[in-house]
Amino acid sequence: MRQQNLLYAHSGGVTAVINASAAAVVAAARASGRVGKVFAAWRGIVGVLEEALIDTAGLDEAALVRLARTPGGAFGSCRFDLPHDDGGAAMDRLFAVFDAHDIGWLLYNGGNGSMDAVARIQAEAARRGHALVCVGVPKTVDNDIVGTDCCPGFGSAARYLATSMLEAGLDTASMVGSKGSVFVMEVMGRNTGWLAAATALAAQGDPDRAPHIVLVPEARFDEAAFLARVREIVERLGYCAVTVAEGIRRPDGSLLMEKSRDARGYVQLGGAGLAVARRINERLGYKFHWAIPDYLQRSAGHWLSATDRAQAEAVGRVAVEYALAGQGGTMPAIRRLQDAPYRWDVVAVDTAAVANLERSLPDGFVRADGLHVTTAACDYMRPLIEGEIPPPVAGGLPDYGRWDWAPVARRLAAWQA
Amino acid sequence: MRQQNLLYAHSGGVTAVINASAAAVVAAARASGRVGKVFAAWRGIVGVLEEALIDTAGLDEAALVRLARTPGGAFGSCRFDLPHDDGGAAMDRLFAVFDAHDIGWLLYNGGNGSMDAVARIQAEAARRGHALVCVGVPKTVDNDIVGTDCCPGFGSAARYLATSMLEAGLDTASMVGSKGSVFVMEVMGRNTGWLAAATALAAQGDPDRAPHIVLVPEARFDEAAFLARVREIVERLGYCAVTVAEGIRRPDGSLLMEKSRDARGYVQLGGAGLAVARRINERLGYKFHWAIPDYLQRSAGHWLSATDRAQAEAVGRVAVEYALAGQGGTMPAIRRLQDAPYRWDVVAVDTAAVANLERSLPDGFVRADGLHVTTAACDYMRPLIEGEIPPPVAGGLPDYGRWDWAPVARRLAAWQA
Repeated sequence: MRQQNLLYAHSGGVTAVINASAAAVVAAARASGRVGKVFAAWRGIVGVLEEALIDTAGLDEAALVRLARTPGGAFGSCRFDLPHDDGGAAMDRLFAVFDAHDIGWLLYNGGNGSMDAVARIQAEAARRGHALVCVGVPKTVDNDIVGTDCCPGFGSAARYLATSMLEAGLDTASMVGSKGSVFVMEVMGRNTGWLAAATALAAQGDPDRAPHIVLVPEARFDEAAFLARVREIVERLGYCAVTVAEGIRRPDGSLLMEKSRDARGYVQLGGAGLAVARRINERLGYKFHWAIPDYLQRSAGHWLSATDRAQAEAVGRVAVEYALAGQGGTMPAIRRLQDAPYRWDVVAVDTAAVANLERSLPDGFVRADGLHVTTAACDYMRPLIEGEIPPPVAGGLPDYGRWDWAPVARRLAAWQA
Repeated sequence: MRQQNLLYAHSGGVTAVINASAAAVVAAARASGRVGKVFAAWRGIVGVLEEALIDTAGLDEAALVRLARTPGGAFGSCRFDLPHDDGGAAMDRLFAVFDAHDIGWLLYNGGNGSMDAVARIQAEAARRGHALVCVGVPKTVDNDIVGTDCCPGFGSAARYLATSMLEAGLDTASMVGSKGSVFVMEVMGRNTGWLAAATALAAQGDPDRAPHIVLVPEARFDEAAFLARVREIVERLGYCAVTVAEGIRRPDGSLLMEKSRDARGYVQLGGAGLAVARRINERLGYKFHWAIPDYLQRSAGHWLSATDRAQAEAVGRVAVEYALAGQGGTMPAIRRLQDAPYRWDVVAVDTAAVANLERSLPDGFVRADGLHVTTAACDYMRPLIEGEIPPPVAGGLPDYGRWDWAPVARRLAAWQA
């Protein structure tokens, strides 16, 4: 019996464990005995359109292990949504590529937008009477996919950020001077405050420990209340540590990150963290330091959450099971069975029901004054950052993989977007 | 025989291993059997002036182990230089505190400025015919103390930054798009480029790996040459990763960090990294991400260099030996005996000979075009980031210490600066 091929692709921002999902997909597909070749697209859905495929047969067992522990997206990524207004040209092209390479299964790793693509591609297959089975693999450091208790990628970023706030908080506390010191860390999160909230784990329940304030997009930024709280903390402790999600907004809904004005009225382009830090300095006179970990927070393979990596592997493995079982249009989701000790399993979710939705911090996770998160938020997040899985080290640095992919020969004319 | 007391203090910016030196001082002083009480000053030399002393007797063996692995300065720190123009008031006060608490030995942990204080305090003791012995303990992430092959604190910060560049480089490579992507990381280093240079270890000798460009204060920033190089790298690889030391300067000697102008001529206050990233965007049109690890780079106790920590402990332990041997005005320095395998020992250096000097990257460590560092620089730095020493973890976070210090009763009137 002819075996069809499986195609894996990932899109959107990468994570520290996205390759663990990829490696699990490859391993599960091989182990099934039912899959011919396991292809990966170079640069996500754009790579499918461009027929830029990689044959993962070149990865031996040792290379798969190495892939699973390497942060970043080994097969590249892209920021591209399948168009709705191209008369079906992109969709036609996808199916032409599937047919040209005998793709029976498409596994698509991504966030909310990618789950929309999964639902649309599966619906298109049904419309065409095409046998393609398309299954989603959830992933995002933002933790904002609906239908899953958490998202692979979040736990490791959360662990990195909580550790960073713990360490920088100790540093800031050391540097307490007579004038008051403030440390501000800006973290990712344009629309949701999950990563900002994660830094609250550093305080371990003690209101005197960093971070003393956590600003999330779910609460409007009330400058007067914020500054009053900073002053109160500095007057009590001598210093104050603040986490700022990049997407916090003023009461009128405008983003702090877009622009702010300095004392002379000049427009200052810069992040929300810098804007907040400058405002503290202007209004309260405190010295400030600020950090923006940016990509560091989503690529810290040296400090993974073992729980997160296990979940990234599980959704990859189970996605192959769903695909081979013909459960197109689904995505494996993490279900929480118990908080402590933490127990979880994987269940199937219909991507059409969750696509393009966005999961914000629930009301019970944001403190009423909008300046911190609650114990309930910490209880939810704590198990997600647990478990050690240090990387092998060579020469003082993590021993990550590097690949030179050989492209699969193209069978179609070049794609014109 | 009456045993005199020993006083330990640390000043200036803290490091991830400064407490390892402190713990080694306490342990060595206890083990000597020749020291009465081991005091620590709260907030460095300011704490001595303010007679804010802590009796470390409260730290049992387990607490000392915990102290040694906790980043930040457990006894606080300060940025304060002993004045030259106060008619000797501060010096008088220091000796009054020494006498009030029967201090026979002062161990002062810090950088160039602190070594100046060590030399001056020892000279003052000689002038007064006072028996005090003052010994320095070198420390700085900047690695700029003269007379020592490297500075405790640098190796761990270097390891953290090289790992961060390695990981963020993988992330940036994943996100390669059609428009070119640039990642800029701004690291500490107002006057010297040691920490920026350390990120070059991430490339492991491969010019195609991040960082592709390293800008250090020792080379003037030639914008045209820099932009040409960025363009060349992006055209070849699709992306480019750049390390920027905060203190880089234009050919006229002005700091980029102080101000730059946007396309409309507005003054933009911000760091050198942001200024460089914006310039790339304005002139070349590439998308950019930028990071500023700030305090994270000097407090990453979760990813220490074991070599660095061993050296931090050694200088603390040996400083006690020098003190007890009456070698006032010295500091223990690291001497490199061999590159590979790395071997080192500790030798005495006269603080008066090195005080207030600053060790820049030597010419042979900066590439002739000023856009990267050399193989010789990497060969020098590589052993300093080696060796694993992961912290114990509780709840997913490093299990660091916290202390509530009980102040020693004051015996003098309050200090009026």
